[in-house]
Amino acid sequence: MTGDHRTPVTVIGLGSMGAALAAAFVEGGHPTTVWNRTAGKVAALVGKGAKQAERIEDAVAASPLVVACLTSYDDTRQALEPAGAALRGRALVTLNSGSPAGAREMASWAVGHGARFLDGAVKNVPSAVGASDTLLYYSGDKSVFDEYETTLRVLGGDTVHLGDEPDLAALYEMAVGGTLLPALVGFFQGAAAVQARGLPASSLVRFTTKWFEMINSVLPVFAEEIDNGDYSKPASSVNLFLAGAAYDEELGKEASLDVAWHAPLHDLLNRAVAAGYGDHSISALVEVLKKPDQAT
Amino acid sequence: MTGDHRTPVTVIGLGSMGAALAAAFVEGGHPTTVWNRTAGKVAALVGKGAKQAERIEDAVAASPLVVACLTSYDDTRQALEPAGAALRGRALVTLNSGSPAGAREMASWAVGHGARFLDGAVKNVPSAVGASDTLLYYSGDKSVFDEYETTLRVLGGDTVHLGDEPDLAALYEMAVGGTLLPALVGFFQGAAAVQARGLPASSLVRFTTKWFEMINSVLPVFAEEIDNGDYSKPASSVNLFLAGAAYDEELGKEASLDVAWHAPLHDLLNRAVAAGYGDHSISALVEVLKKPDQAT
Repeated sequence: MTGDHRTPVTVIGLGSMGAALAAAFVEGGHPTTVWNRTAGKVAALVGKGAKQAERIEDAVAASPLVVACLTSYDDTRQALEPAGAALRGRALVTLNSGSPAGAREMASWAVGHGARFLDGAVKNVPSAVGASDTLLYYSGDKSVFDEYETTLRVLGGDTVHLGDEPDLAALYEMAVGGTLLPALVGFFQGAAAVQARGLPASSLVRFTTKWFEMINSVLPVFAEEIDNGDYSKPASSVNLFLAGAAYDEELGKEASLDVAWHAPLHDLLNRAVAAGYGDHSISALVEVLKKPDQAT
Repeated sequence: MTGDHRTPVTVIGLGSMGAALAAAFVEGGHPTTVWNRTAGKVAALVGKGAKQAERIEDAVAASPLVVACLTSYDDTRQALEPAGAALRGRALVTLNSGSPAGAREMASWAVGHGARFLDGAVKNVPSAVGASDTLLYYSGDKSVFDEYETTLRVLGGDTVHLGDEPDLAALYEMAVGGTLLPALVGFFQGAAAVQARGLPASSLVRFTTKWFEMINSVLPVFAEEIDNGDYSKPASSVNLFLAGAAYDEELGKEASLDVAWHAPLHDLLNRAVAAGYGDHSISALVEVLKKPDQAT
């Protein structure tokens, strides 16, 4: 779709992310209909050129492509319930958090209402929506992706279809997102440690940034070890990490911090050693994580 | 130092990192003396042009700048003990893991033997030693840093002096490094989750890489919130993370993984809510981490 014939899009749910999505469609020249349970950010979007639908069924009926960005699949179904009939023949794209099981249920519901379904995730903050390197991935009905790829690319230039199964995006979402809280708590702990010394948390940022870049540089090696199931040529061994575990305790003492959240990570290291992986790559922890029955 | 008058350097300890440091000095044209407890990588370095010292005291006596890269401060002191007299008047730089308390002890020992002391850390993998953007930070005697900065920069172009206190590098080392194991376990868990679906861990790499880049992009905002002690304008609230915590359990069920290591992270979220930070920024977790007495 180009020029004056850009695909009309409806955006359901105008939280920070939904509003950013709607704004990107408006700015991309797409006739954009918006709906939110409360007034919220509607006025600002209407000011930019979006059209407000009072009723959800009118919102759905307004466009062949309906993008829902609510908190959960349950919320999405509840909001869309009155618009069930209007969904027939349309493409529904959900961009909320949720489990693979939730995505499968959502897909059944959508298909049961005669809609084609695509689930996806925006892998960035709302302010990054629309940027050329912003990543969104989708899974589900490939015909929807193919038909609307150009439109969806308005939300981020790095737009990927993972596969036909509707729960793949949710699976990757959890697989990718599981690093966020642990990584942030690690940063917050470091911030507290430098603050305890009278130094600003901001002094840590550029070092932590480089550290995450370093971590990124080694991920392909770890992935290869995991895919080959061969952990025998370690760049960093489980034992090396275990030797470093004592420093987490030291940091707690040095800066009077609660470092108890490291304990189960150290337990994983010890279980890996017990399983014979001490001198193997730290990526061998994958094998320990795969054994929930042995969890303490 | 330039041309034919590059500073002679001694490298003590030739593990993966120590060997990389020695190789970088040799390649940088520095007369380089190496010493290791065992034969190890000595031959390869001698082949490149390094000079092997049989005795540690000869190694120390060979150069005005002595770089030690052993496993711990204790190991370093034990190795250097026979060379105590030779240390007088030299600059000793340690590049091992350790606690701030360990760095302070090491500094006292070195100064007690008449050496000037600098502690530091290589913030990257051995293969990155010598690259223009490889980060190393140091703390301790500024006169050592100023005198040998050009030489130290051979190890990495991003070379920083944090301050005169000899334990600052160890403090930052722990403050930065505390993200590594949690972030990696998050990645390994994700790898196991996609593997459980028959998909390769390598398919996760480019998404996780972007995710860490996203995390890097928000660190300055979190640091500012922490430095101002103002968590009241959240981009991502504690409650939002708490809502997402359920997905960690879902992932465990979906892929039969042990996700128990998330429990204390969820506990931190709950304690933040109990402390009134539910609608505040996730960076408010810093305040919970600062209260070790309330640890469960």
